[in-house]
Amino acid sequence: MVHKLILVRHGQSEWNEKNLFTGWVDVKLSATGEKEAARAGELLKESGLKPDILFTSKLSRAIQTANIALDKADRLFIPVVRSWRLNERHYGALQGKDKAETLAQYGPEQFQTWRRSFDVPPPPIADDSKFSQFGDEKYADVDPTVLPKTESLSLVIDRLLPFWQDSIASALLDGKTVIVAAHGNSLRGLVKHLDGISDKEIAGLNIPTGIPLVYELDDNLKPVKKAYYLDPEAAAAGAAAVAAQGQKKK
Amino acid sequence: MVHKLILVRHGQSEWNEKNLFTGWVDVKLSATGEKEAARAGELLKESGLKPDILFTSKLSRAIQTANIALDKADRLFIPVVRSWRLNERHYGALQGKDKAETLAQYGPEQFQTWRRSFDVPPPPIADDSKFSQFGDEKYADVDPTVLPKTESLSLVIDRLLPFWQDSIASALLDGKTVIVAAHGNSLRGLVKHLDGISDKEIAGLNIPTGIPLVYELDDNLKPVKKAYYLDPEAAAAGAAAVAAQGQKKK
Repeated sequence: MVHKLILVRHGQSEWNEKNLFTGWVDVKLSATGEKEAARAGELLKESGLKPDILFTSKLSRAIQTANIALDKADRLFIPVVRSWRLNERHYGALQGKDKAETLAQYGPEQFQTWRRSFDVPPPPIADDSKFSQFGDEKYADVDPTVLPKTESLSLVIDRLLPFWQDSIASALLDGKTVIVAAHGNSLRGLVKHLDGISDKEIAGLNIPTGIPLVYELDDNLKPVKKAYYLDPEAAAAGAAAVAAQGQKKK
Repeated sequence: MVHKLILVRHGQSEWNEKNLFTGWVDVKLSATGEKEAARAGELLKESGLKPDILFTSKLSRAIQTANIALDKADRLFIPVVRSWRLNERHYGALQGKDKAETLAQYGPEQFQTWRRSFDVPPPPIADDSKFSQFGDEKYADVDPTVLPKTESLSLVIDRLLPFWQDSIASALLDGKTVIVAAHGNSLRGLVKHLDGISDKEIAGLNIPTGIPLVYELDDNLKPVKKAYYLDPEAAAAGAAAVAAQGQKKK
């Protein structure tokens, strides 16, 4: 049978708007982000896809996106599982910093390395930083020694895959249509795994916000065809905008 | 230890606004209902209570109320469990009917019996009614023979208590602060159980919408003191309004 997996990246947050590194800092959607989430829900509804179970990170902006989208799609009743393993990449000591100032301070090469290299994490965040998640009640149910203080995309994938393998895969193999509401980098990690993208090529992959990306998977959870966006034109424009955001900083 | 349980009745729905019997029909909150939910969240935040787990019915208006309130209270990350056992009373053949027309058709005595008697359910709904939940995917995970076609408050309590005993009680006994977002009659049933209210006296109990009601329970899950609303003045006015709504129909 064909297993359906829908990925949604949250819309604009208050800190995207302010151009700050966010990572695990728990900021909410901006008004624009709420509209993007509503649009995602309308696209879902029009598509006829009916998610049976929702997986989200523990961060408000992904949860808000899911809540708004499922409301629009009339699927609020489905069960929900949240995990820190779907969280955005931890941006370490960069969390809370202005992106333009960071670029000016460290220069374009270092800046792009932190932003897009596969396995170079930024410096770790200090436990006493106000942007640290040290002691955050959200993660009180997790072995404290496993919680990151900084992450590269490679480290995101390492902590994401066990949740994919056990929880999300299990729901798919039970015949459920799954929706995952998460973040730019946790979704890039999942897409890299599903599509077998190389460590090098993943740097060029950008996932647009608020546009559901649909995978159809076989019983080995391999794609039976190329994944598709529910609004391909908007997705292409959105991915270009994300890519340009990176360019602007150079 | 003292176990904390917070009950929230959803705010005004689109059908409350239109004065229709709703029951299990899955209508959404009105704009007023969304505001009530936001107020519930602000009250929660001001109170300093920090719910650790959310229980909701499978109906959108209770889920929307919880989503909006937990957003305002910065508790979106908590785990969620949904159950049909927290649903509103099933109003049988009255679902979708105008309350004033029903009153005119059946007379005040029959009308009040259906509305407030403890154990007289309205006539059952026909499976082919457009307001029936027969075949509704929301309940695909439940033994079909147990799903009601009409209910009295007594029957609501019968199906509610197993969920209280196993799921909600378990979370409380684990030391979690629990929030339940549900409906006028499922919450009346729970309050009847917790406060030991008689079958006769429960007819006079009205729960206002959108105002968190807080129980502090001992290790036998008996109240250590009288439950309290987070905004007692608004709660008294709200309960009087619910009671008057009943009177108006006479």
